[in-house]
Amino acid sequence: MTFNPVPFTQVTLNDSFWQPRQLVNREVSLPHVYAWLERTGRVDAFKLQWRAGDPNPPHIFWDSDVAKWLEAAAYSYADFPDSQLETLMYKVIALIASAQQPDGYLNTHFTVVEPGKRFTNLRDRHELYCAGHLIEAGVAHFQATSQRTLLEVVSRYADLIDATFGRAEGQKRGYPGHEELELALVKLYRATGKKRYLELSQYFVNERGLQPHYYDLEARARGDDPAAYWARTYAYLQAHAPVREQTEVVGHAVRAMYLYSAMTDLARETDDESLFRACETLWEHLTTRRMYVTGGIGSSGHNEGFTSDYDLPDLSAYAETCASIGLVFWAHRLSNLTGESKYVDVLERALYNGVASGVSLNGRGFFYENPLASLGNHHRQEFFDCACCPPNVARLFASLGQYFYSTDGAEIAVQLYGQGSARIGDLTLQQVTEYPWDGRIRLQIETSKPASFKLHLRLPGWCTSYRLSLNEQVVSPTLERGYLCLQRKWHSGDEILLDLEMPVVYLRSHPLVASGVGRAALQRGPLVYCLESADHSGVSVHHLMAPKEASAWRVEKSTDWESVITLQTEGLQFDASAWNKSLYSTQIPTTQPASLTAIPYCLWDNRAPGEMRVWLPLETR
Amino acid sequence: MTFNPVPFTQVTLNDSFWQPRQLVNREVSLPHVYAWLERTGRVDAFKLQWRAGDPNPPHIFWDSDVAKWLEAAAYSYADFPDSQLETLMYKVIALIASAQQPDGYLNTHFTVVEPGKRFTNLRDRHELYCAGHLIEAGVAHFQATSQRTLLEVVSRYADLIDATFGRAEGQKRGYPGHEELELALVKLYRATGKKRYLELSQYFVNERGLQPHYYDLEARARGDDPAAYWARTYAYLQAHAPVREQTEVVGHAVRAMYLYSAMTDLARETDDESLFRACETLWEHLTTRRMYVTGGIGSSGHNEGFTSDYDLPDLSAYAETCASIGLVFWAHRLSNLTGESKYVDVLERALYNGVASGVSLNGRGFFYENPLASLGNHHRQEFFDCACCPPNVARLFASLGQYFYSTDGAEIAVQLYGQGSARIGDLTLQQVTEYPWDGRIRLQIETSKPASFKLHLRLPGWCTSYRLSLNEQVVSPTLERGYLCLQRKWHSGDEILLDLEMPVVYLRSHPLVASGVGRAALQRGPLVYCLESADHSGVSVHHLMAPKEASAWRVEKSTDWESVITLQTEGLQFDASAWNKSLYSTQIPTTQPASLTAIPYCLWDNRAPGEMRVWLPLETR
Repeated sequence: MTFNPVPFTQVTLNDSFWQPRQLVNREVSLPHVYAWLERTGRVDAFKLQWRAGDPNPPHIFWDSDVAKWLEAAAYSYADFPDSQLETLMYKVIALIASAQQPDGYLNTHFTVVEPGKRFTNLRDRHELYCAGHLIEAGVAHFQATSQRTLLEVVSRYADLIDATFGRAEGQKRGYPGHEELELALVKLYRATGKKRYLELSQYFVNERGLQPHYYDLEARARGDDPAAYWARTYAYLQAHAPVREQTEVVGHAVRAMYLYSAMTDLARETDDESLFRACETLWEHLTTRRMYVTGGIGSSGHNEGFTSDYDLPDLSAYAETCASIGLVFWAHRLSNLTGESKYVDVLERALYNGVASGVSLNGRGFFYENPLASLGNHHRQEFFDCACCPPNVARLFASLGQYFYSTDGAEIAVQLYGQGSARIGDLTLQQVTEYPWDGRIRLQIETSKPASFKLHLRLPGWCTSYRLSLNEQVVSPTLERGYLCLQRKWHSGDEILLDLEMPVVYLRSHPLVASGVGRAALQRGPLVYCLESADHSGVSVHHLMAPKEASAWRVEKSTDWESVITLQTEGLQFDASAWNKSLYSTQIPTTQPASLTAIPYCLWDNRAPGEMRVWLPLETR
Repeated sequence: MTFNPVPFTQVTLNDSFWQPRQLVNREVSLPHVYAWLERTGRVDAFKLQWRAGDPNPPHIFWDSDVAKWLEAAAYSYADFPDSQLETLMYKVIALIASAQQPDGYLNTHFTVVEPGKRFTNLRDRHELYCAGHLIEAGVAHFQATSQRTLLEVVSRYADLIDATFGRAEGQKRGYPGHEELELALVKLYRATGKKRYLELSQYFVNERGLQPHYYDLEARARGDDPAAYWARTYAYLQAHAPVREQTEVVGHAVRAMYLYSAMTDLARETDDESLFRACETLWEHLTTRRMYVTGGIGSSGHNEGFTSDYDLPDLSAYAETCASIGLVFWAHRLSNLTGESKYVDVLERALYNGVASGVSLNGRGFFYENPLASLGNHHRQEFFDCACCPPNVARLFASLGQYFYSTDGAEIAVQLYGQGSARIGDLTLQQVTEYPWDGRIRLQIETSKPASFKLHLRLPGWCTSYRLSLNEQVVSPTLERGYLCLQRKWHSGDEILLDLEMPVVYLRSHPLVASGVGRAALQRGPLVYCLESADHSGVSVHHLMAPKEASAWRVEKSTDWESVITLQTEGLQFDASAWNKSLYSTQIPTTQPASLTAIPYCLWDNRAPGEMRVWLPLETR
C-alpha cells in the first residue's frame, strides 16, 4: 500500500491547535525571520560584496537559512497569495540569481571568502547542504507560482554538481558532509522529470561511507591529517559505513534524518529493497532505543546528536527542533511508502510535542534545544547565530496540510486529525472535531457523484478504545496496517463519526531510560504534558509527585489559553532539604499535599519563565 | 586545626581490603605497566632516536606515563626496597637524564617531533603537564632513596621553566593547559626548600584565566584563530576566569582536580584566604551538584569532564579513574588543611568505590571509565593509548598509607580505618579491625613513655550510631569537626574500642539526579554495592527490583572472594517485554519473586563479564 500525500494546497486547517500557529507563522514568524536574515547580513551576502578584511564574512551555512525562508515563503504564498510577499520573494530570488557564477556555481561563502576552495572540504563546510536547500526553495517556488526563475538557477547549479561528482573519469567521488542535497535532488527530479537528478542522489547515497574513504583522501589533498578530524568519527555524519550496512542511528541527528529521508525517497523511486530494509532497521533502532517521549531526538549538544542506547537525559536533553522536524520528514516518507500507521504515530508524537515546542505562541521565539526538564534557565530566543531552526519550523508549518491526508488515487487515508477540509480529486473531506483536545471526529464526505474507494482512518497508537459509526449506524471496520478501513460506494453527505477514547495515561519508559524510572510521562491523545512553574508558585516543580494512577487527573479547560485542556490533580510535594549538603541522603523525604496542574509540553515557556518537568515522580504509597 | 599526613613509609596496612591490592600493585601492576610502557615505545622515546618519517612518534603525553610509573616505583621501593626495581629505576632515570637538553629542557615529543615549537602551544600540548609529572617523580625518587639524580634533573628543568614563564620583561605569560605542574612545584619546593618553585606555582595559578587571555595571544602567534579552539571554551581547562572568581567545577575533570589541589596547597603554604574560599566554593559545588555516589566525577566522555548540574547518567557515565584519584588528592589536601572530616568522607567514598573499581583484583586490568550501570559491554583493559589511569592507580596504591593518619605534632587524627599500624614520632598506633567489612575497630597505643595528646577518631559521615570505650570503660568523646576526640595522657597498652554501626542503607539521590529517582543505591560502611550478572543468571540485572526497606538485605560472606561481604535479599524481577517495540508503554510490568545478591561496586567485572547496576529500582508495593 503506497500513498501519496495530498498537497497542502488542497488541505485547509481551521482547528484551534494548528490554524492559530499557521496564522502566526505567516503573519509574524515569516517577517520576523526575514528581518533577522537581513539584519545579520545573510540576504546581502548574495551581493558578493564582502572583501577580505571586512567584518561579518558570509558564513558557510548562511545560504541555507535564506533558502529555507524562501521555501517557507513560497509555501505560504501558495496558500495565501500576497503581493508584498511575492515582491519580496522576487527580490531575494533576483539576489540569489545574481550570485550565480558563470558555470552555475552558487555559494556566497566560497565565492567571496574562500575563492578557489570550492568543493575541497565537503566533510565540514556545508557547501552541498546549502545547495540542497537552494534546490528545495527553487522547487517550492516553482510549485507555488509556476515561475521557473529560481528553479532554473538551481537546476544549473545541480547540473554543475552533477558534472563535478560521480564515478566517471575526472569526477570527484565526494558526497555531502551534511546530508540534505540527496533529498532535494529527488524533489528536483520530481519537479523537472529529469532522471539525472535522481541518479545523482542515488550516487551520493550509494557512495557514502565506501572505502577508500573520500573524506580521508579529501583531507590529505588539503594537507590535513584525516586522523585529526574534530568529530573523531565519520559516524558523526553517517559516513562510517556504506548506508545499507548501517544498523544504528548515530551522529548528528539532523544529518541522520535528512539522509534517511533521502534513502526512503530512493527506495520508493527506484524500488530499492535493500535501501528500504536499512531504513526499517534504523527506524527500529531509533524508536526503541534513542527517541524521547516528545519525539525529540539527539541527546547531546556535543555532536548535536545521538549518544548511546537509552541515554535520554531529561535536564540536559539536546533534542534539537530541526531534528524532530527531520523525524517528521522521514516518518512521513515511510508512512506513505508503506501505508503503515506506526510511522504516523511517531510523526504525530514529534509534531505535537518536540516540534510544536520549538516555537512560541507569538511566533517570535524559538527553541534550538527542547529539554524535558528545566531548572528555569532555558528560554526561547528571537534568533540564533546558527539559525537553522526558525526557518525550518516556518517551512514545516507553512506546508503542514500535507501531513493530514494521503491517497493512492483509489484509496484515501486520513493520517492526522484536525478540523478542516481536503479536496482530493472530485471529493471533499470535512473534519469537524476539537482534536487534539477531544477524540470525537466527524467526517463528512462531499462528492459530485458517488465514488467507490476504501477510506483509511488512522487508529492512533495511543488509542486503545474507539467507536465508529457511519450515518449513525455503528460499523465494524477492518484494521489494516493500523488503519480502520471502510470500503464502499460513498455518497455526498455520508457522515462518519469516529470517537477515539482519549483518557489521561501514564507512559512508563523502558527500564534503562534513567529519566523515566520511578516516574511517568503524562499523555492525553497525542499530547505529552508537563508541569511548569507558572502553575505552581512557591514550590519547585521538581519536588512534586503525581498520584499513582493516571485516572486521578481531571481534564480542565485552561484559564490562560483558549481551547487548551489542562490536567489537574492532587499530588504531593516533598521536602528536598535532605540534599542541601549532599547529592545523596539516607533520608526518605517527608511530603505534604499539593495541587498539580499539567499543561501540554509544547506550550511551556509561553507565560512567566520558570522550571519545567515532563517525567513526574509517582507517589509510592 | 591543620594536620600533616603521616608519611606512608610510617604506615603499614595488613587488612584484607587494601593489603592484597597493594601486594598485587607491587608484584603485578608495576611490572605490567612497565612492560606496556616499553612495548609501546614510551621508555625508548627518551633515547631521542625518532626521526621524521619513522613510525610511532613520541606522543605529547608519553613522558607523563613514564614519570607516573617511576613515581609509583619509588613509593613501592620506599616501602619494599628491591634491588631489581632499584636497577630498573636507575635505568629509566638515566634515560630521562640523557634526554635533557643542555639548557635543561626535557620533553621527548618537542625535542624530536616538533623541534622549535617548544612552549608555543601550552593550551593543547601537555608540555608543562609532563614537566609536572617528571618533577613529582624526581621528588618521590629522592624521598625514597635520598638520591638526588632525578631531583637535580627535574630541578634544572624547573629552573628553565621558571626563567621562561612569568611577568618579567621577556618572559612568556603562559600557564599549563593541563594543570599538574602547579602541584608538582609545591612538592619540589617542599623537597628542596627553594621558594622560587613555590612562587612559580603561585604565578601559574594566579595568571590563569586573566585577560588579555594568554591562549588567545598564543593561538594568534601560531597563526591560529583562537575562536577555532576545538574545545570551544577555556572552561574546558578551567581558564575561563581567574581562579578566585571560579565558582563552579567545569571542564576536564582531572585537570580541575589537579588545579584545585594546587590551589589548596598554595592556600596552605601562603595563607591565602581568597584561594581557600574559592576551593570551598568549588568543593561545595562539586559535592552537591556533580559527583556520583561512587565518588566518580566528570559525566561526559566528550570533554572527559563536567557537564551540567545534576547531570549524572549512570549508563553513560565517564567517571574517569584518574578523576576520582584527583578527587582523593584534593580531598586529602583540604582535610589536612582544615581538619574537617567531611573532606575525608568524600575521599573515602572515592577511594573505596570510584578508584578501587579502576583496577582488577589481578592488577592487570584497568577501567578508564567507571560507569554506574553497564549493558555488559564494558570491561577492564590491559592498557590504553591514553595511558594515564594505570600508572596513576599504581602511584596511589603504592603510597596509600599516607591517607590513614595525620598529625600536627601535638594531636593525632585517624582519618581512615583499616587493620595495620602507624609510627608517629615515638608512638605506635595499632588498628585491629575487619574494616570495611565490619565497623568494629580496636586501637592499641604503644609508647615508650606516657604522652599527652588529643586523639581524633573520624566519625564517618555514613555512620549514625557508634560506641566508644577506652580500656573497657565507655567514654564520651567530644565531637570536633567530625572527629571523636579524646584528650588525655596516653599510656602504652591503652586500648580503644570504636564500634561503628554499619547497617545496610539505601542512599537516595537528589530528586534532579535522574539515574537515582525511584531507585536507591545500596551502601554498607564506605562501600557502595551493585548487582552484577555473575550472580543473576537468566535475568537482566536491569529488570530486578529491590525491597522497599534496606533492612531486608542480609549480610553474607562471599563464596567467591575471601573476606568479602555480599548483601542478599528477596526482591522482584519484572517483565520488560512491554518495551520491546517502543521505549514507552502504558503498561505496568508484571513481576515475580527473585533472589538478589549485591557485591561491592569496586569488585564488579572481576568474574564472568556481564551487566551491572548501582541504582536499584525499588518495589513500589
